[in-house]
Amino acid sequence: MSASEPSPNPSDLTDQAELTSLTDPAAPSDRGDAVQRLLYPRSIAILGASDNPAKLSGRPVEYLKRFGFAGRILPINPTRGTVQGLPAHRSLDEVDGDIDLAMIMLSAERTADAVRACGRRGVPAAIVGASGFAELGGEGAALQRELRAAIDESGVRVLGPNCLGMIGVRDRAMPTFTSALDEDVPLHEGPVAFLSQSGAFGGFVFNESQNLGIGISHYLNTGNEVDLSVAELLDGLVRTDQTQVVLAYLEGVTGGRRLLEAAREAHERDKPIIAVKVGRSAAGARAAQSHTASLAGEDAVFDGAARQYGILRVDGPDEMLGAAQLFATGRRASGRRLTSLSVSGGAGALMADAAAQYGLEVRPWDETWQRKMAAAIPAYGSPRNPVDLTGTLLAEPGMLRRALRVAVEHPDTDMIAVLLGCADSCATELIDAVEEANRSTDRPVVVVWTGGSGRPRQRLRDLGIPCYTGPGSAAAALGLLADFSLRPALVRPQRPAGIDDAAARSLLTEARAARRIQLDEHESTRLIAAYGIPSAASRPVESADAAGAAAGELDGPVAVKLLSDRIGHKSDMGGVRLGLDEAGAIRGAADDLFRIAREAGVDDARLLVQRMAPAGTELIVGTKNDPVFGPVVVVGLGGVLVEALADSQVAVAPIDTDTARRLLLSLRGSRLLGAVRGKPPRDIDAAAETIARLSWLAADLSEDLAELDVNPLLLGPEGHGAVAVDALAVLTSPTETE
Amino acid sequence: MSASEPSPNPSDLTDQAELTSLTDPAAPSDRGDAVQRLLYPRSIAILGASDNPAKLSGRPVEYLKRFGFAGRILPINPTRGTVQGLPAHRSLDEVDGDIDLAMIMLSAERTADAVRACGRRGVPAAIVGASGFAELGGEGAALQRELRAAIDESGVRVLGPNCLGMIGVRDRAMPTFTSALDEDVPLHEGPVAFLSQSGAFGGFVFNESQNLGIGISHYLNTGNEVDLSVAELLDGLVRTDQTQVVLAYLEGVTGGRRLLEAAREAHERDKPIIAVKVGRSAAGARAAQSHTASLAGEDAVFDGAARQYGILRVDGPDEMLGAAQLFATGRRASGRRLTSLSVSGGAGALMADAAAQYGLEVRPWDETWQRKMAAAIPAYGSPRNPVDLTGTLLAEPGMLRRALRVAVEHPDTDMIAVLLGCADSCATELIDAVEEANRSTDRPVVVVWTGGSGRPRQRLRDLGIPCYTGPGSAAAALGLLADFSLRPALVRPQRPAGIDDAAARSLLTEARAARRIQLDEHESTRLIAAYGIPSAASRPVESADAAGAAAGELDGPVAVKLLSDRIGHKSDMGGVRLGLDEAGAIRGAADDLFRIAREAGVDDARLLVQRMAPAGTELIVGTKNDPVFGPVVVVGLGGVLVEALADSQVAVAPIDTDTARRLLLSLRGSRLLGAVRGKPPRDIDAAAETIARLSWLAADLSEDLAELDVNPLLLGPEGHGAVAVDALAVLTSPTETE
Repeated sequence: MSASEPSPNPSDLTDQAELTSLTDPAAPSDRGDAVQRLLYPRSIAILGASDNPAKLSGRPVEYLKRFGFAGRILPINPTRGTVQGLPAHRSLDEVDGDIDLAMIMLSAERTADAVRACGRRGVPAAIVGASGFAELGGEGAALQRELRAAIDESGVRVLGPNCLGMIGVRDRAMPTFTSALDEDVPLHEGPVAFLSQSGAFGGFVFNESQNLGIGISHYLNTGNEVDLSVAELLDGLVRTDQTQVVLAYLEGVTGGRRLLEAAREAHERDKPIIAVKVGRSAAGARAAQSHTASLAGEDAVFDGAARQYGILRVDGPDEMLGAAQLFATGRRASGRRLTSLSVSGGAGALMADAAAQYGLEVRPWDETWQRKMAAAIPAYGSPRNPVDLTGTLLAEPGMLRRALRVAVEHPDTDMIAVLLGCADSCATELIDAVEEANRSTDRPVVVVWTGGSGRPRQRLRDLGIPCYTGPGSAAAALGLLADFSLRPALVRPQRPAGIDDAAARSLLTEARAARRIQLDEHESTRLIAAYGIPSAASRPVESADAAGAAAGELDGPVAVKLLSDRIGHKSDMGGVRLGLDEAGAIRGAADDLFRIAREAGVDDARLLVQRMAPAGTELIVGTKNDPVFGPVVVVGLGGVLVEALADSQVAVAPIDTDTARRLLLSLRGSRLLGAVRGKPPRDIDAAAETIARLSWLAADLSEDLAELDVNPLLLGPEGHGAVAVDALAVLTSPTETE
Repeated sequence: MSASEPSPNPSDLTDQAELTSLTDPAAPSDRGDAVQRLLYPRSIAILGASDNPAKLSGRPVEYLKRFGFAGRILPINPTRGTVQGLPAHRSLDEVDGDIDLAMIMLSAERTADAVRACGRRGVPAAIVGASGFAELGGEGAALQRELRAAIDESGVRVLGPNCLGMIGVRDRAMPTFTSALDEDVPLHEGPVAFLSQSGAFGGFVFNESQNLGIGISHYLNTGNEVDLSVAELLDGLVRTDQTQVVLAYLEGVTGGRRLLEAAREAHERDKPIIAVKVGRSAAGARAAQSHTASLAGEDAVFDGAARQYGILRVDGPDEMLGAAQLFATGRRASGRRLTSLSVSGGAGALMADAAAQYGLEVRPWDETWQRKMAAAIPAYGSPRNPVDLTGTLLAEPGMLRRALRVAVEHPDTDMIAVLLGCADSCATELIDAVEEANRSTDRPVVVVWTGGSGRPRQRLRDLGIPCYTGPGSAAAALGLLADFSLRPALVRPQRPAGIDDAAARSLLTEARAARRIQLDEHESTRLIAAYGIPSAASRPVESADAAGAAAGELDGPVAVKLLSDRIGHKSDMGGVRLGLDEAGAIRGAADDLFRIAREAGVDDARLLVQRMAPAGTELIVGTKNDPVFGPVVVVGLGGVLVEALADSQVAVAPIDTDTARRLLLSLRGSRLLGAVRGKPPRDIDAAAETIARLSWLAADLSEDLAELDVNPLLLGPEGHGAVAVDALAVLTSPTETE
């Protein structure tokens, strides 16, 4: 790809090209250069720059001047010689030298032409601030199509439209009109980038990040994403040296696979992505959709994909910024063992509770180390962990230094939390002690400082030490850090051996040719068999006599079921008879089923005679095509738990067996897969193998296959495998592929 | 009771006297007067007052002077004529007039004598600041016993020992040496009381409450609770006119029934209790226990009791203070419908998600009201709810006033959230609009203000309008307010009719006399039958022949089980055979079971032949004696869900059927009790009746009955009742009652 080729429209649904990118590393793009020029411009032209710094179109120049942009500020205004005291140019063509970035502050109607002008002038990237595009529908949508055409023609990479722009903190590059810079904001430069699909709210959160002293590399508001998507920007940020952590506020993700590829890049570079995504609730999803007009997709799919790719999802801005403080230190946890030192036994106990909630362990120290700690603290304190320094600390603040020296040396401490409060009068000594400890270790050290003037918290943050007002937010951040530090490797799954592609394709091709909408159970079973997934042995038959004969061949009790591609949920209509052994019973059942089919208007029904599978734990394993992420695999426990809990987990297909195993073990009812009620543990290996193979089936055949359910998959004891007892494949509707 | 009678030791376990208090309203206590004198002292004597305001024993006088205590400050110091510029007395006896409260700042050794001196002088209440009592064990415990004896002799009511004292904000009554007042603290008077079992941490949280502008009536640190317990103080606070909300930080509760009686008083007076209680996790419970040396009890029991009595349990100080801001307004929610107005569509969507998480509803308005809202906001905003005012609001802040007028009139709005950010420059106009709306309605109105200088948040709080930095904390507070506003009535349960007390008592008396530790299944069944709980029909037999005959009488398939009070878990040893119909099978099973019993060393085993119950949904219903709360009832779903989820709920016995029904419906798997998988809904009425009756059994017989399990209770379809299929009663160990 070259920078002048048309780029794909990110509002398209997932396409096959995206899918393959999951297994083949994406080719490096020349476009990356344009994104880097956007992120680190040395010169910024402002088209439509106003002389009035209070107007929206005057703000970018005002901000660039006020904060002291390190590069060239180039106001473009055909009617004025100067803009806010700077020499103005009448057009881009009058500017000498390179222009890295154009900030287009013109009306929606004039924007497409401006992008074309950028292209002619060789400007690689532009930001479009105007609204009035697709978010309005109708005429606005037409303007957005025109803008898209101009982008395709010109090769200019565009952020927006309908976006508030960007803040590059290091270079004070502020092509933006966000009101978050209205008042004096103390800017903190650092390793954290923040991408927001919301303009106003993004600005508030950026502003709050600066109140908290979080060091930021870039803030970007993405707007309508007519060209540059969150995914591509994320990828571009992750590839800079400066950005070590990315925060994202997401409303509607398009191009899910591209987002995951960016997440993979981040994962491999050890750069965490901490994301707030709205739409957990129906009300939230509805609000986000009406707000962004983008396709929301199912929240459970986003949630599963995020977990699979190591994206750390948090609930809201407070949690995101709390985590950002800690991740900005660049430290990692080598385990989940937290040592807590507190001026108050109560706060220590609360910290232990909060730590447990976020998967951390506050274990009592062994006796040797308790003795070492005891030497540093009062006799009526506790050296066990949580360590209770007692209120005496406020009279003898030097004690904290001694206690922290012991904690830093303690080999079974993966992270340290210091719990303090009020105490402005001895804050300096306490802070010095924490700072000394923090400098002497590379393990994460955080402080909880409750009450007081707030100055000690600010001072600690200025020293790069994360500081919280209560134990809960500290534990949440530490828990996320442990999750990220200990995340599993993100391997590219290998296609399993023994897949009969020809058999699978021909089943689908035949069904398509016959304009059918689904496969019957026997065909569905053959489809999964082509991917190496075993089913209970079965025979399709056309008469009651044949049913009896088939039962004889299958040797053992059988199930007899209606077989027709026109009947979806055969159990609901009494179309399944289980555990039949005697010839008379089998014939009677067969006659019944044929009658039921006829009554339902299906005259050509057949029957499936199936050997009864040995009892096992019921799983439900399915696939479907998500509009945002493409084919996914869904795993749940079957039987009563499905009804009780809607307990399921999702991953983006294909996956390897390790990922499949993690899916299973993250089910809320997963302890049923272990040794319970006197039963041996289940064959999790076999289940994981089945799930992985099904995920490849979904990924390979997503063009024709809309969904496939194996329900139940019966999981035997360890070593006894898993067997599908029923399967139903539904084809994509012709419009999806024709 | 008179004030001079010895008061019960709160560290005693729950006793029968406490239990009866749940069904009989407690007699009014004269002691209430002493607690009121503690809370609102008109004169405070400080025993051991130091002239040095920096010393712990100098601080109370310093604080009383600095903050301007409205009453008399009476330093008692035998060696000085003045203390910190105030005239000092050599002893209490030298003081003229009433002394409402003594703050005893003497060593632990001298404290008991000081309490006796208070008694002689007619001082009704004292605070003991010294540590060195039971928290140290050994000699300290002896000193605490001596202190207790002095209290019993003198009739003085004592807060402490080992406590930091009290802050009465209205009167600036500050008999305390907390370091939370070290720096200048702007005190805010109001309706919120705060009780803390932790001194240091309590001080920090009090201090933070003042930073947030929360109006406080009292802050009390309870220390070792040798006399006044959290429960009694809570009761005393709830009975004042000033206190409308109580915050509690709890580590270890003693006298659980007394706490619940105080909670009932609060419930009836419409005064919420918002509690942080440590010990949710094993690590937290261990830390709290080692810190307070108090009996922790099971967290699940506290949790169930709190829910039952309307105590609002929150995770930590941030959540507690967030809720306190809102509850301090005194407003109530008439429903769960939230209207959200936001400057940012993104923030609105996030608020909808957060609201759903806390059980609130953000429903789209109907078209009529959408039109009214649409007239107030820009065309590109959204009038649906969440209402999106768009970033234009910051240019036209008057829009907020118009939109809020519509929201306040909207009849289906139970509460309003306004989401803003940054915008210091137009903050005044926005705040005025919110204040106008807040004044014009009695519904809860909160603001989320993200980013900015923090001054707008402070200004809103000063106006009594709760303000948060993110949607999550606002939604959490609103959810708690809805929970409290819509809480079910707390009725005193009526003893059900049809209890055969004589039969129940005689079963226990006989077993006790025989020095047995449990009842066998047949006796256990008779025990619950005495309380009107049906079991599957059964016959105890002593031979295989008799088993066959019994099966004939019972008419239908039977279960045959080992029957012995020396065998607890008979299923585990193969002692249960189900679904037997034929005579030969019954005889064979009976022979087998006798052999199994003999092999287990039980020669006198009998068998129980029981008619097979019709299939139903399995529940487990049990009772036990909690060391803190006494007899409780535990309800869970049986079968696979127990293994998968440990899904159970607890309530303090006895309970009525409405409470029992709520317990059932709060199980995570409760949807299995509705119509699922083609089965009709379960007979929840019958289950609730059984649970309520069992709770009375537990409450009546707790002296002899340690625990009783009905497992399973089979619950049939609506109208078909519930039937116990197995039961096991375990007696209290003789030491508990002898």
